[in-house]
Amino acid sequence: MNNFIFHSPTKFVFGKDTEKEVGQLLKSQKAKKVLIHYGTGSIKRSGLFDRVVKSIEEAGIEHVELGGVVPNPRDTLVYEGIELCKKENVDFVLAVGGGSTIDSAKAIAAGAKYEGDFWDFYARKAQMEDALKIGVILTIPAAGSEGSQSAVITKTDGMLKRGLNSPFYRPQFSIINPELTYTLPTYQTSAGVVDMMGHIFERYLTKSENTLFIDRLAEGTLVSIIEAGKKLMDEPTNYDARAIICWAGTIAHNGFFGVGRVEDWASHGLEHELSALYDVTHGAGLSVIYPAYMKYTLEEDIEKYKRFAIKVFGVDSTNKTDMQIALEGISELESFYEEMGMPTRFEGIGAKEEDIDKLVNKLQENAGKTFGNFKKLTMEDAKKIYELACA
Amino acid sequence: MNNFIFHSPTKFVFGKDTEKEVGQLLKSQKAKKVLIHYGTGSIKRSGLFDRVVKSIEEAGIEHVELGGVVPNPRDTLVYEGIELCKKENVDFVLAVGGGSTIDSAKAIAAGAKYEGDFWDFYARKAQMEDALKIGVILTIPAAGSEGSQSAVITKTDGMLKRGLNSPFYRPQFSIINPELTYTLPTYQTSAGVVDMMGHIFERYLTKSENTLFIDRLAEGTLVSIIEAGKKLMDEPTNYDARAIICWAGTIAHNGFFGVGRVEDWASHGLEHELSALYDVTHGAGLSVIYPAYMKYTLEEDIEKYKRFAIKVFGVDSTNKTDMQIALEGISELESFYEEMGMPTRFEGIGAKEEDIDKLVNKLQENAGKTFGNFKKLTMEDAKKIYELACA
Repeated sequence: MNNFIFHSPTKFVFGKDTEKEVGQLLKSQKAKKVLIHYGTGSIKRSGLFDRVVKSIEEAGIEHVELGGVVPNPRDTLVYEGIELCKKENVDFVLAVGGGSTIDSAKAIAAGAKYEGDFWDFYARKAQMEDALKIGVILTIPAAGSEGSQSAVITKTDGMLKRGLNSPFYRPQFSIINPELTYTLPTYQTSAGVVDMMGHIFERYLTKSENTLFIDRLAEGTLVSIIEAGKKLMDEPTNYDARAIICWAGTIAHNGFFGVGRVEDWASHGLEHELSALYDVTHGAGLSVIYPAYMKYTLEEDIEKYKRFAIKVFGVDSTNKTDMQIALEGISELESFYEEMGMPTRFEGIGAKEEDIDKLVNKLQENAGKTFGNFKKLTMEDAKKIYELACA
Repeated sequence: MNNFIFHSPTKFVFGKDTEKEVGQLLKSQKAKKVLIHYGTGSIKRSGLFDRVVKSIEEAGIEHVELGGVVPNPRDTLVYEGIELCKKENVDFVLAVGGGSTIDSAKAIAAGAKYEGDFWDFYARKAQMEDALKIGVILTIPAAGSEGSQSAVITKTDGMLKRGLNSPFYRPQFSIINPELTYTLPTYQTSAGVVDMMGHIFERYLTKSENTLFIDRLAEGTLVSIIEAGKKLMDEPTNYDARAIICWAGTIAHNGFFGVGRVEDWASHGLEHELSALYDVTHGAGLSVIYPAYMKYTLEEDIEKYKRFAIKVFGVDSTNKTDMQIALEGISELESFYEEMGMPTRFEGIGAKEEDIDKLVNKLQENAGKTFGNFKKLTMEDAKKIYELACA
């Protein structure tokens, strides 16, 4: 087990009606003026926005608002939010939404306390030294940004998608009410399931030794996600299935499964190029990448993939070679993605085989010569994985 | 899944040589003068104390020290620590030790910021409103106090053992170096293993519904603890086994396994009377109580006990009734305790059947008419469980 630091200081307030506690939570954070940041306005139609404002007003806290976050959130809106925060003396940014909204809120919080261009942090030209405090009301379980220290922003000029980790990006609190996710379109529920499973895969697939303890917990979480995901296809308002997806999505990315090991993140690198070029949902890009990535890296650790097949998908190992068992696990994952209505090949997301060179070139710009840790991948490897994802 | 709040803000710094980071961690907490609190002085003989002091001095931070914590830590030393903190203007309490030392440090931290008698908090006469900040260097994995919000103190007058939970009791940081546990006597390693398993049992055994997701993680953790515990009987300096025990002990009691459910805590109530009357190690008291408690509550949830047998101990269920499988699981737990050199009956801890009435009377004083949540236990139930623990 490698040395590690685990620090997930966010207060998670989980369950029915918990959004009504937002005013008191902000008060305990000594917030005076809050930016409510959100996406397309569905939170207004659903009445959630009004409940949030009511709670904030009852706590005697002022607010301003900024909507319009889109999937793969853009720097343009971040600049708008930063300007608003500075002009209005906002001291707390409250994201009401999913990963894109939370990531956008995090970047605003960072930029509002910085004299220069917030993109400096993403271009690794400056180190974050302060940020506004951040809070979350989660409406889409997927990205895990409600508990993570990460935020991914797309620079509109060149569609450059970049991630950043910072301890300032940990929310002070995250309110997670599974009922708020009842009305998610099936596609978004499914993309979220793929996303959170991916956050576990990036930690599960490792060359670090003696990771079995946490691997077991990762497997138990994957099994629970798969069960709950399938249930939600028929019963989108099943509270307990929604709750499992919500909490699993949070712990999948707050660092819990990464302790004691080197994490991978190759598949996320490969996917980022897909969603940057085609503006495809992150989860849909990932469901195309993972089966290809896993097939390509099978021989890095056949034992691990065999274990994955047996423990996560209950593959029967009788009279089969390790390779057969391992491949069957990946095949089961593909079938699960398909059952959830997710694409598993390039064509399913409108990606084209002839773009592969372009994708690889962009990847090299972002990642350098090699990337990933489970297997150090070259651009030649990346090309082959993209090709496998077409086949 | 019930509503819950999960808030474990402690920064866990885990791995080899991490105790050398204590000075910088204290500095980041803006500590000026630290009370180093410890137990019997073994940390002086081992050289750990010197390493800690060196790191603290290099960070330009002053310190005072107070040793002498005993198992089942006493109020008398807490009063001494409080006085010292007030006299010396201590602003940070650093516990270097196991659960007893950490619990004692927590009570000192609470009392140092309170005008009245710190026992008021334990007697539920006053509510904690402030405390000194607390840090930990863990040397005994067992109680989980390094990540918990709990501290148990024994009032010498009457040997009254009382627990208290408070958000102020969460350490700012906990340094966990598994190597520091290499020299623990076997008995203490084993008692720690029983203790942390107990923290999981108290959450695992619940009447709350839809807990399977977290139950799976609890089972994976129990399996890992059992494997590592057995390994340590032969190889006390096996780093990875020590690391598993250390991290499992921490997450067993930071609230992670308690989300979404009503916790039980009946067995801890029953055990507290044993360790108060006989001054026996908490883990040894628990290894006597759990088999009896489980047998007594078997019919509360045969399915759960059956699952426990199969998932945690790999009990073969072929041609057996649910009851047989469940009982075999409890029997496996007993065998495991015995393999670890732990007692499973009253006589193993010098407890006497004729004291049962006295134990029950004390329990009633502390717990009231009923206690526990998995099964609401009366004093009549308590008596029967103590009797089962004699048989």
